[in-house]
Order: sequence, then C-alpha cells, then structure tokens
Amino acid sequence: MIKLAVGIDIGGTNTVYGIVDEHGKIYGEGHFPTRKYADFELFMQALADNIKSLATDVPENYELIGLGLGAPNANYYTGNIEFAVNLLWTGVLPIAQKLKEHFPGLPVVITNDANAAAIGEMVYGGAKGMKDFVVITLGTGLGSGIVAGGELLYGHDGFAGELGHIIVTPDGRECGCGRKGCLETYASASGIIRTVYKLLADHRGDSELKSISFNELSADMITKAAINRDPIAIEAFAHTGRLLGLALANMIAITSPEAIFLFGGLAKAGKYIFDPVKEYMEENLLKFWKGKVKLLPSGLNDETNAAVLGSAALAWKEIKNKK
Amino acid sequence: MIKLAVGIDIGGTNTVYGIVDEHGKIYGEGHFPTRKYADFELFMQALADNIKSLATDVPENYELIGLGLGAPNANYYTGNIEFAVNLLWTGVLPIAQKLKEHFPGLPVVITNDANAAAIGEMVYGGAKGMKDFVVITLGTGLGSGIVAGGELLYGHDGFAGELGHIIVTPDGRECGCGRKGCLETYASASGIIRTVYKLLADHRGDSELKSISFNELSADMITKAAINRDPIAIEAFAHTGRLLGLALANMIAITSPEAIFLFGGLAKAGKYIFDPVKEYMEENLLKFWKGKVKLLPSGLNDETNAAVLGSAALAWKEIKNKK
Repeated sequence: MIKLAVGIDIGGTNTVYGIVDEHGKIYGEGHFPTRKYADFELFMQALADNIKSLATDVPENYELIGLGLGAPNANYYTGNIEFAVNLLWTGVLPIAQKLKEHFPGLPVVITNDANAAAIGEMVYGGAKGMKDFVVITLGTGLGSGIVAGGELLYGHDGFAGELGHIIVTPDGRECGCGRKGCLETYASASGIIRTVYKLLADHRGDSELKSISFNELSADMITKAAINRDPIAIEAFAHTGRLLGLALANMIAITSPEAIFLFGGLAKAGKYIFDPVKEYMEENLLKFWKGKVKLLPSGLNDETNAAVLGSAALAWKEIKNKK
Repeated sequence: MIKLAVGIDIGGTNTVYGIVDEHGKIYGEGHFPTRKYADFELFMQALADNIKSLATDVPENYELIGLGLGAPNANYYTGNIEFAVNLLWTGVLPIAQKLKEHFPGLPVVITNDANAAAIGEMVYGGAKGMKDFVVITLGTGLGSGIVAGGELLYGHDGFAGELGHIIVTPDGRECGCGRKGCLETYASASGIIRTVYKLLADHRGDSELKSISFNELSADMITKAAINRDPIAIEAFAHTGRLLGLALANMIAITSPEAIFLFGGLAKAGKYIFDPVKEYMEENLLKFWKGKVKLLPSGLNDETNAAVLGSAALAWKEIKNKK
C-alpha cells in the first residue's frame, strides 16, 4: 500500500490541490478559481469534495497520511488564516479545523505560501539534505521561507520570514502594507514594473517598453526586452539586483544560510536577475562569507505544480518530525 | 551533591571564569588579563589551573557537569576560535579540544559572546520560558544572539547573528570589518561617539562634549551629558535610536521574536537609548507587530558577572538538550 499526502495551495486567484507521494509523484490534481465561493464554508465543502473525488480515482491501494496547506497569512501555530488582504473572506478563518472536520483523524499543517515553498524545496527540490537555507519567492510580492537547523523559522507568532517587508528605502515607494520603502516594492514582479516606469521618467532615449501601459506591462515583457538589449530593461534588472542583493547580504549576516533559492515568476528571468543580485550580494557580504553562500534557482521553478508539491511537503515533513 | 558548570568568557581585555549552579549561584570566580599570555598553550594551561584551583575551594560536595565558553569568533560547530581580530593569538585555535584535554570527560560548548549572552538571558535572565527572542549586545561593537524555537540560531557555519554587520547606510562610516555603513558603526558605544563628533561638526551652539577629545569620550559621558540636557548628547541618542530602531524592525520582519533585550554598556543609558529605539522600531514595524514585540533591558545588565553566567548557561543548556 502506498502512502499519499494532500497538498493544497490557496492563492488570491486560484486554488490548486493534489495527491502526492513521498518522492513528489503526483497521483491526481485539480484547481478552481478561489473567488468562485464568496462563502468560506461553501469553499471548504467544495475543496473537500474535490479532493475526495480525486482520491477515489487513485488506481492503487493507498493510505492518506495528512494534509498540507499553503495560503496567504496562514498561521502554523493557530491553524488560522488571519486577515489575508487578497482573499474574499475576511477576519480569522479556522481553516485547519475545517479541514480536520472534512478529513477526520488526519494531521493538518498550514503555513504561508513562501514557507510551503521552502519545505517543498527541502523535500522535493534543490535543498535536499540542507539544514540552513532560504527560499525567496519573487511573484507579485516578495515572500521568504527560512529554514534554520532543519526546521522552518516560524518565530513567536508564526509570522517570521516577512523579508518582503523590511524597509530598504526610508520614505520610499508606497507598499500595500501601508508603509513606505518595503523591499517588495522594488524586488518583485510588480516592483520591477514600477522601476521601469521610474527609469522611463528619468531618462531619454529609446526603449521598447515605452509603448506599453503600466497595467499591461509584465515582468516577462521586461525580461524579453532585456534579451533584446533594451537599456531600460537591463537597468531595471540592475536596480532590482542592487536592492535585493544588499537585502540578501544583510539577511545572510542574520541567519547565515548555506544557500538562497530564488523561486517564482521573476526568478525565471535567469541571468538577467541572478547576475545583478549575485554581484551586489557578494559586494555587500562580510569577508568570510564572500563566495560561500550559494544563490540558486529553485529546483521547483520548472514544475507547473510547485505549489501543490510545497504544500504536500508540509505534511510529509510533519510526519517525519513526529517519528 | 550539587552540580556545577564552569563558565568562561574570553574578551580582548580580560578573561573571566566562574563556577555556577543551575540557578545562577556563583561558587567561585576569577579573572586575569587575556594579553598576559602571548602563547595560546600557556594561556590555556593558566586558565585550566586557575579553574581547577577555584574548584578545590568549593566547600560542598559537587560534580562538574560541563564547561561553557564565550569568545570572539568562537564557532559552536568546529569548537575553534577562528581568526579573531581582538586576540593576540592568530589563525584557528582549537580551544574546545584544549579544554577537553584539561578536563577529560566533560562536555565543552563554545560560541561567541553575544550568543552566550542570549543563552544566559534564557537560563538566568529575562528570557526564562521564552522560545523566540533576540539579545543585542551594545558594547564597543554590536553583537546579537538569536533564539528561534528555543534553540540558538547558529546558521550553516556557526556564524549567524552578525546583526552588527548589516549595512544600514551604503557608503557610510568605515567599519572594522573593512566595509562601510555597518550598523555597529552607528549603534554601539563606539558608534555613538562617532555620532557626537559628526553632530559637533555639523551644528553650532554649546555642548559640554566640546571639551572632550575623541579618545577620551565614552558612552557613559554621553549619557551623563544627556541627563544634563545637552542637546548634542540627546540628538546623538536619537540618531542612534533611528538607525537601531529601523534595524530591529527589519529583524523582527525576518525572525518575529517575542522580545528583544538590550545588553551591555550602551544599554545602561536607560531611557536615553530605549525611548528613541522603541519609537523608531514601532514606527517601522508592520501593522500586526506594532505594540507586540517587547523591547527590554537585559535581566543580566546589573550582574557584574553576566559574562560568566552566560557562558555557564551554555553548558547547562547543552546538558538539558541531551536529556
């Protein structure tokens, strides 16, 4: 009989789920728009029904060992989603409790998506065997999952790892959190778009990005422009690298990881993002760390279902810790 | 029979040692100038002899359970002091091994002084019962010991917690590490002295600090001037608070501690340092942390032998972890 874990990722746009074995083989997966259900109870019912129907399709004999869930502002300690700004449901949502009601007797582990990505990296990705590393998720915002001594660093309240909200430029760009100058207003898909617009405002000369509106511009377009040697696009990556590289050097001084993995949309820009980040990270490191901390693409960057793997990994990790 | 641990702190100036029980009662202590022995082997011999002679003076029946040692650049993983700049002995010093030779059969734990201070805070000070907290040592430099999930955060190589060397002002003040703009060039006893001189250069008006040379000026004198409402001294503390407060807010975003303890000479300035640090820390915190993270004076600030207690606590913590 094989053992399988359920992985669930609730995003602002889509909810994805799957059934995954210890080695990352996916036995079934599905997804639906998160905003399809304005009512949280109905959402949970649909999610549970979908997972159960997926499970009945598994051809082999199996045993479900647990559920892992990644979601914005999901708290490992309380089992609640707490005041997530990108979801329709407001307040405190007891999501771990609800999952336990739908799947009695199974352990449920929840945390935010960046922490799930870090555990996914450790169980299925490039951090196998590492005990001290960091995963940086470069999506619309910037998230981070920090593993120290083989365990996720949750902090006192479950909300550690908010690297996207360290302030790197006092009185800098407005951030969705209500403050100014947070790292994610510069180093993220939305941050590099803002940087392109700043550069277009400050400089003269041609750029293919001048024909694209703020709302239309994507990080992918900036990468394509950089490949075409567009000077604004290249400078936008350099500026992103300066700020992210310094922030990573400062984080290394605090947590001293073996490696930092870049995950998500902006990480797919390859050398255009890695080269400047690496350059400025190295430039700002204390001497004895120079050349020693690996900056790597996530081992899950090419997986279409990285979020499902990361969430399932939470369940596998929890089971392993209990043994 | 009582159980006792040896605590040793090797500083650039003095080496202190003592014999301490589980509750922080000191049964004997001593000290000598670290630079008395230019030869490392002779230093170790003298240290061991002194400790053994101290131990023979303990009136009660006792059992030694282990040795803890705090020293600059002491590495928990390797047991070596590695390239410490403030000691006479150069290169890699196998100090844990040497202690084991002098005290066969006893466990030896070494780490840097800020980490020892953090464990001391947990075992004997204000962090009893806390699992996630940070101790900031404000001496000549700035050190930090981070406890996460009840364990010291050592990082991949044993050198985590170098908060003094996060860069807070790119191209800022020259630092002893060879770079520029490190936090400890502003937020430390030596940093606030530099700040006073910067302020004296920039401003007019009277200040009692104008009559003191750079070499003579101490953090204590700046505190005394602040008590006398000297505007330069008060502004120097405010400037220190702005930079340290922001750095602490950023560190909270990364590690989310329950409390931050300020330890050491500059921390003894009381409200003159705590008020501005607290103000700017709160100002820069994400909304859900505002008012929640305690900023406290170290529970060991009034102990004349805090360094001995911290180092002895390392041994007690190690014994407890093994149980």
